[in-house]
This record gives sequence, C-alpha cells and structure tokens, in this order.
Amino acid sequence: MWGIIATWRMAVEGITEASYILENHGDAGDAIETAIKEVENFPYYKSVGFGGLPNEEMEVELDAAYMDGNTLDIGAVAAIKDFANPISIARRLSKEKVNSMLVGEGAEKFAHKEGFERKNMLSDRAKIHYKNRVKEDCLKSLEELEIKPYTGHDTVGMVCLDESGKMTAGTSTSGLFMKKKGRVGDSPISGSGFYVDSKVGGASATGLGEDLMKGCISYEIVRLMKEGMHPQKACDIAVTNLDKELKERRGKAGDLSLIAMNNKGEWGVATNIEGFSFAVATDKQEPIVYLTKMIDGHCVHEVASQEWLDNYMKTRTAPLVEK
Amino acid sequence: MWGIIATWRMAVEGITEASYILENHGDAGDAIETAIKEVENFPYYKSVGFGGLPNEEMEVELDAAYMDGNTLDIGAVAAIKDFANPISIARRLSKEKVNSMLVGEGAEKFAHKEGFERKNMLSDRAKIHYKNRVKEDCLKSLEELEIKPYTGHDTVGMVCLDESGKMTAGTSTSGLFMKKKGRVGDSPISGSGFYVDSKVGGASATGLGEDLMKGCISYEIVRLMKEGMHPQKACDIAVTNLDKELKERRGKAGDLSLIAMNNKGEWGVATNIEGFSFAVATDKQEPIVYLTKMIDGHCVHEVASQEWLDNYMKTRTAPLVEK
Repeated sequence: MWGIIATWRMAVEGITEASYILENHGDAGDAIETAIKEVENFPYYKSVGFGGLPNEEMEVELDAAYMDGNTLDIGAVAAIKDFANPISIARRLSKEKVNSMLVGEGAEKFAHKEGFERKNMLSDRAKIHYKNRVKEDCLKSLEELEIKPYTGHDTVGMVCLDESGKMTAGTSTSGLFMKKKGRVGDSPISGSGFYVDSKVGGASATGLGEDLMKGCISYEIVRLMKEGMHPQKACDIAVTNLDKELKERRGKAGDLSLIAMNNKGEWGVATNIEGFSFAVATDKQEPIVYLTKMIDGHCVHEVASQEWLDNYMKTRTAPLVEK
Repeated sequence: MWGIIATWRMAVEGITEASYILENHGDAGDAIETAIKEVENFPYYKSVGFGGLPNEEMEVELDAAYMDGNTLDIGAVAAIKDFANPISIARRLSKEKVNSMLVGEGAEKFAHKEGFERKNMLSDRAKIHYKNRVKEDCLKSLEELEIKPYTGHDTVGMVCLDESGKMTAGTSTSGLFMKKKGRVGDSPISGSGFYVDSKVGGASATGLGEDLMKGCISYEIVRLMKEGMHPQKACDIAVTNLDKELKERRGKAGDLSLIAMNNKGEWGVATNIEGFSFAVATDKQEPIVYLTKMIDGHCVHEVASQEWLDNYMKTRTAPLVEK
C-alpha cells in the first residue's frame, strides 16, 4: 500500500513521477522530493520554484519544508533566493539536529556550502507579470489596493505514504505575489503549512499563510485523525471551524485549502474557496486530478474534465505580453 | 481579574512593570510588550535582546512574536539584526493583514521604515562570551562538539490576561548561542513557541526550538485547555507526551519547558529539565519566582529562595574576562 496527495492541478506531473518510485518499493522521502522538484522546475507555474512570481522588489524569495513522519525530523528554508530546488535544501536540513530551519542569507550560505544548484529563479515570464502588475497598481486607488492586497498563493503541499509505512510531508512556494521582502507564509511553518506523523497521517495547506497560521491547521487535522477520524471528516471539520472563527473575530477569512492522508492511504480534502484542485495517486488509483467545493460543511470532489485540464494548461502557457 | 506568566527568572522585573499596567485596567498587549521590552533591554541576560549571545558569525540575530488572543492576529520577526526591541516590531506587524511575519533583511527594512530604534545588539560582554567559546571549542574533539552542539536557549515567553478578558502571548530570543546564520527556532513560530486564544487561554515555550516544533506544543496545550483541562494538567500532559515521543523515535528529547494561563487566570508550568524557573503575577499574587521540576509526570513548583535569587543575579553580573 502506498499513496501521495498534493494541492493543485500543477502537482500531477510530480506525483506521477513519485508514483513510479512508490510502486517500486521506494522511499516516501525520495518520492515527495522528486514530486516537488518536478513542480519547482516547471517554468509555467507562477507560485512555486522557477517561474514563481517575485516580491515587491522583483526578487523571487522561496519557502519550503520537509518533514519525516517516522522521526518527526523537520527541515525548512524561508526567503531563500536563487537556488533551484528549495525542497531539496529543506530535506537536507531535516537531517540536522539543530539549525534545521534557516532563512534568508543564512539559508543561502548553507545551500552554497552544501553544493546545491544556483539558479536565477526569476523567469522572463515572471518579470513580465511583475511589470504589468506594477503598471496596473499605478492605476488603482488606494482603497482598491487595500481590498485585494495580493493575489496568487498556490503553494504546492504534499503528503506521501510508502510501502514501509513511512510518511512524509513537503511544501514549496514563492509565496504571495508582490509580498514584502522577507515575508514568510505558512509553508515552512510546522503545524501550519504541514505536519506528518507516520503513526497517524499527514496534512498540508495552501491559501493565505497569515490566516492558516492562526489555526495551526495542519497539526489540527493530524490530531483529529489521531482520534480516529477519517481524513475527509478531519479536513471538513478543521477548515469549517477555522473559517468560522476567523469570520466571527475578523469579519472575513482568507483562503484555506487542505489536503490530508492517513497511514492507511485514505485521504481527504477541504477548502473554503471555489475552484480548488488537487491530485492523488495510490496503489489502487492512477494519478488523477479532482476539483472540490464545500457544500454544507462537507467538501465534494469531482474528477476534473478533459476540457478543464486542457484549458488549465492553455491558460498557464498562453503567450504573455508586456502592457 | 488579570494575570501574567513568563518563562525564567529573568522575566520578573518585566512582569512587575506589566502588573502596574494590568492593575490599572491596562491592555494585555501593552502589558506584555512592556514586560518583554524590559527583558530585551537588560544587558545581563544572555539570550534575549541586548546582550544576547551571537551566532557563529558573531552577529546577534533575534526572533520575536506577538499574538492577540481576541483577533488571532500574529506578528513575528526572525533573524533580525540591530534593532533594540524585536517584540515591538512583532506587535506592529501583527496589525498587518498580510506580510505579518518578516525575516532577515526584509524585517530590518520594515523596522527601519516604521522608525524603530536601531541599536548594535552585540554587547561587549557577549563578545567576550563568543571569543571564549571559540577558544574552548578549538580545544574540543569533534565528538565532544557533536554531543553538545549548542547550549543556552533561554527564550522569554509570556502569556497575559487583562481585566477586559483579552489575552496575549509574546516571545523574544537571540536563539541558540553559536547557531548558524539565519537559524530560526520555535519562538516566532505560531503553535510552537506561542499560541493564545482569549476564549480559552495561552501557552509559550522555551527550550530546543527544533524539538518544540516537532509537537506544536503551545497549540496543543491551548487545545487541551479548550477541552476543559486545567493549565497545569495540560502542560504536564503535553510535555510528558512530547518528551516520550521524541525519546521513543529519536533516542532523546531536547529541553522542553512550557508556561500556560487560561482565561480565568489559572496557570500551569511543565518542563523536562532540572532548574527551570518562571515568574507569575496576578491580581491575587505579587510578582513571584518559582522553580519547578517534573516528578512522576507532574511538575511541582517551589518558591525560589532569597539565596537562589541573590545567587542568580550575582552569577549573571559577575565580572567576565577574556580567556
């Protein structure tokens, strides 16, 4: 028995690679790293790795984390620039007893000394997106800018189970488009962006990091699964509760989308937004993309149509011109 | 009814200041910021603010966080250099809807633009500690260096309740002595270093950040209190469980010390080390320092003797010579 689940359609090529490893008795650490690297390397995804959209200073600052559910080892980087695969640096850091979460220049020094690949992570396409955004923002009133401070935060987050029963979690993101330099979201934060315990299961998040952190929601989902709850029910309850608490106390809730898998390979997904997609592969199920939405406190999943999938890739790779 | 609880003896002057604010119907945000600034400003405490011990490059990099238990607003900085009061920057960031956790250079830019006080946070005394340590380490075998990678991680963490029922949590630390540049511990991490919900209570941690993060232990304590558990029992159970899980999976557990208070002003403390001290003040109790230790899964607290208190300050302020 094995399985891997991931946020967003963009993860499907990655989990396909991972499924080859897993069906050949491979390790959940190798599988998840391979899957996330695939997403990081694909230049047309605007929120992870190369091609990720830059911060307000036109720098691509990246966050990533890796967790081993057997040992509870965690490795994480945040606000790291110009390295090709943040997930691999995070995984390497997870083997350190101390200094396993590094940020900014310190993270870059470590990655350099460990021989990780340097790469200018700002793609030409991302540069055009940035320049167009700057022009658009000039035309907006201050009020409009305040209402929608930033859009675009499609973190890749994954949970993986291998045949030995080992589970891992991993995340990688360029964070919010036009974020402030040094901004860190939930992705590298234990319990918020990810959590996994091989005795139970794991969860990972995408959405507005600042709000996901307010509920330690990945940890909460694993905890609910530990009480015996099915991953779907755990996700439904955790997302519904956090959404409700945030609206009650703050008037509104940011985007919250969660994926989870337990150590029996059962999985669940919940979201408070429209149009959240995710990808799953298990020993019983070829890699597949679903779309989901919340109906009366319970998320209902639907297999993505070929039309939707074709349109997805078409819009991602559409020609882009500077305005 | 009001109360404030904090990690370590070093917090007692701070919570004394805070208690003047709280008994005069002041705000839990103002009280906790005042208390933590007091600790940051005191030059003889080696692990918080000015006088904090540097990283391996002899730079003092600071982490801090602030959380508002009414709104769940969180602000945090990590690996920030040369600002006098990280807690105040964290509190300021908690008012931002996005970009509320900033690290490294980005955090410094924000703090500069917001007009926070610049200060070289490396004290002469910390410099002597650093130089002596470098000399000591040269004489050690590689094995000795590995066994005790770094010592000294006395984060100040506090939870505060004001008369209006508002609760806050705050942390501030220079992190592990001789840490790698960019290393981030649990202190600025929601759910690990701190968590607070005015509907329930709050908790804060000190110890080995890398291990505290593996259990999201501050969130876990608040969650146990939410189930109706007394803060003391919640702390005992959470520390005992995480200590056990870490030992079972990793052979050993790092230092874990937790303080908590609920919204009735009841408090609890638990630790897996010898000699953990903490300070409390409430409307019924003048500021007081306790020492605690775990006996059969339950922490027993003892008021610190005058001799212990005198000795504490004497050793902190003792003359220091370069070896």
